[in-house]
Amino acid sequence: MRSVYLDYAAATPVRKEVAVAMKPFISDIFANPSSVHAAGKRAHEAMEKARAIVQKILHVEKNSEIIFTGSGTESINLALKGVMRAYQNKGNHLITTKIEHKAVLETCAYLEKYGGCHVTYLDVDRFGRVNPRDVERAITSKTVLVSVMYANNEIGTVQPIMEIGKITKKHHILFHTDACQAAGALDINVKHLGVDLLTLNGSKMYGPKGTGILYVREGVHLVPLVHGGRQELGLRGGTENVPGIVGFAKALDLVERERGREVNRLCTLRDYFIKRIISGISGSTLNGDPTNRLPNNINVSFSGIDAEVLVKMLSAQGIYVSAGSACTANSVIVSHVLTALGVPNTFAMGTLRFTLGRSTTRSDLDAVLRTLKSNIKIIRKTGTYLVGRSSRGK
Amino acid sequence: MRSVYLDYAAATPVRKEVAVAMKPFISDIFANPSSVHAAGKRAHEAMEKARAIVQKILHVEKNSEIIFTGSGTESINLALKGVMRAYQNKGNHLITTKIEHKAVLETCAYLEKYGGCHVTYLDVDRFGRVNPRDVERAITSKTVLVSVMYANNEIGTVQPIMEIGKITKKHHILFHTDACQAAGALDINVKHLGVDLLTLNGSKMYGPKGTGILYVREGVHLVPLVHGGRQELGLRGGTENVPGIVGFAKALDLVERERGREVNRLCTLRDYFIKRIISGISGSTLNGDPTNRLPNNINVSFSGIDAEVLVKMLSAQGIYVSAGSACTANSVIVSHVLTALGVPNTFAMGTLRFTLGRSTTRSDLDAVLRTLKSNIKIIRKTGTYLVGRSSRGK
Repeated sequence: MRSVYLDYAAATPVRKEVAVAMKPFISDIFANPSSVHAAGKRAHEAMEKARAIVQKILHVEKNSEIIFTGSGTESINLALKGVMRAYQNKGNHLITTKIEHKAVLETCAYLEKYGGCHVTYLDVDRFGRVNPRDVERAITSKTVLVSVMYANNEIGTVQPIMEIGKITKKHHILFHTDACQAAGALDINVKHLGVDLLTLNGSKMYGPKGTGILYVREGVHLVPLVHGGRQELGLRGGTENVPGIVGFAKALDLVERERGREVNRLCTLRDYFIKRIISGISGSTLNGDPTNRLPNNINVSFSGIDAEVLVKMLSAQGIYVSAGSACTANSVIVSHVLTALGVPNTFAMGTLRFTLGRSTTRSDLDAVLRTLKSNIKIIRKTGTYLVGRSSRGK
Repeated sequence: MRSVYLDYAAATPVRKEVAVAMKPFISDIFANPSSVHAAGKRAHEAMEKARAIVQKILHVEKNSEIIFTGSGTESINLALKGVMRAYQNKGNHLITTKIEHKAVLETCAYLEKYGGCHVTYLDVDRFGRVNPRDVERAITSKTVLVSVMYANNEIGTVQPIMEIGKITKKHHILFHTDACQAAGALDINVKHLGVDLLTLNGSKMYGPKGTGILYVREGVHLVPLVHGGRQELGLRGGTENVPGIVGFAKALDLVERERGREVNRLCTLRDYFIKRIISGISGSTLNGDPTNRLPNNINVSFSGIDAEVLVKMLSAQGIYVSAGSACTANSVIVSHVLTALGVPNTFAMGTLRFTLGRSTTRSDLDAVLRTLKSNIKIIRKTGTYLVGRSSRGK
């Protein structure tokens, strides 16, 4: 049986077109873009061409508003720490939600511990939606920044970013959104969204690992996270990763061009898969918002199942999915997102995340459904499973 | 005429063997190494195999002492900010030198401005050497960390790291060295060096851009720079750049294996080139230490020359070298390193850095010498040069 990868929210393969775009900058046009000579200029020009592509897609006024970083996580750290540091004379209050990615939550914990900051963690409803009125109510005279993710990486719930953007604008507060899961699925026009800062991650959109961007609206001040040379307008020191930057822009350009069609295709597959699971497997419930949801996300809890056992069983059969949130090394603890949604523990422990991608077909999903059903039947019957039987011997 | 690249200290091409090693992890073994399934495990295993290679080369006890980052600059930021934060109850004093890379100096400036730190910037002698006794004299009861670069990126001077390591050990102070220019040229066995933290940069050793490592001796505490998931033992959040990590390890392994022979070859070329320049071009002087010097570094000042003009002239003729330090975007201001050495301004303004690499041959250097001589003659005669004549029109 051919393997079926349904973990696109954790990592995507680099597309062939992206690898082709990056290739000249690996060993040929390899000079340091800061170098004055012609070899450096060529690298610099490629980088600025990439920046212009990103700029256009995000509908950003100036190319100086696009900062290339080393990951989505780094962009988030730069946004939150950079803003809170730069505006420390204005205030020390940050508003976020309980279901953000760990990159936001751990950065907030750091800011509370070392940065003299006070953080409000907003509740979400049972679908994982934050209420814009809760954002407004949380604002104090000390509030500097609101950070709400565009779409949740675990449950796929899409947040009302535009409404929150109107509120932050009204109160003259900065607004950052973690849009790492949004590219290729949602509108990332920063003018429409009304955000001041926005994070993207190349490795979640068929681009290279080790690449991120931070959009920073002109006029927003940041203290750098990585100090060094004057690269990226002095906001991020270190020799620029030219092939990574070129690949990021190419990947973003491709997913944006194909977005309309691919979103339709994925939504159809997603809804088909959800319907088949819920109707075909007893004790299964969908987590997240049934409609305001990423086109590729299916997050389902199965009662009385140990998700890790199920993930390993499926893996041994060539089906790759996530238990809980996949972005944290080797951890399968109950997800903070499911906890915030009020999912009972017996369900939360048996949660799988299936995330579809460009290569996913209906017949893949049918095959996964059959295997899933029989595995769940086995687990529920025996209460256990010998993981050691996996063909990988692990 | 074929072009001659003599700017290997600014950037190196990715070696073919490195690109080959990285290839499987671009689009095939692309899963998130944190994923529990077999696809994730394969990525994880490749990453850990790479870590073991680095561990062995650095003679590090445990693989948990090797942290992969996104650049040499990031590693330096993590080392300095991470240590000063973690030991803030012990003290707030850091000792470094006036000729460090901007990654160290700008991080120190940040720590002084925002971190409540006090930094001592040691002088160097006219060859760029720091005196270990100066390090010892600067130590106070509040000293937490000493950071001295292994070899200078501009002038190539190698510092007495082992002697400094003995002093810091005696005084129970932590010692970080920026070894970004050292890999492939000098012994990077951390046991020999006696350092507690060491920074390396993949893109300076024929590895991929956007990769760095920080060696952190077991028992040394760090507050992370990039917060997020539990990757890299919780010291650096963000999906690991598996192809970058694999490529880094391969590049380091190759330069280390070839080091003995390549160092001999480069030293011979370097000394030949220095001799020919100094004897053949009037008003030229070598900067840096004549003997304790990187095998590939030639830093020469030419009196009465504007280095930027000369770099652009050479570039138009297909010869790529640096003016001053190349690691800072678009800047050709008098280098802080030459200032610290006491090089008079009229010489400092006319400084070129030639850095040799794997593909450099004696006939390359002969060709460069001829062009260099005639260009310097033209500049000194006319006092000017039309940069617009470059074939790239820039």
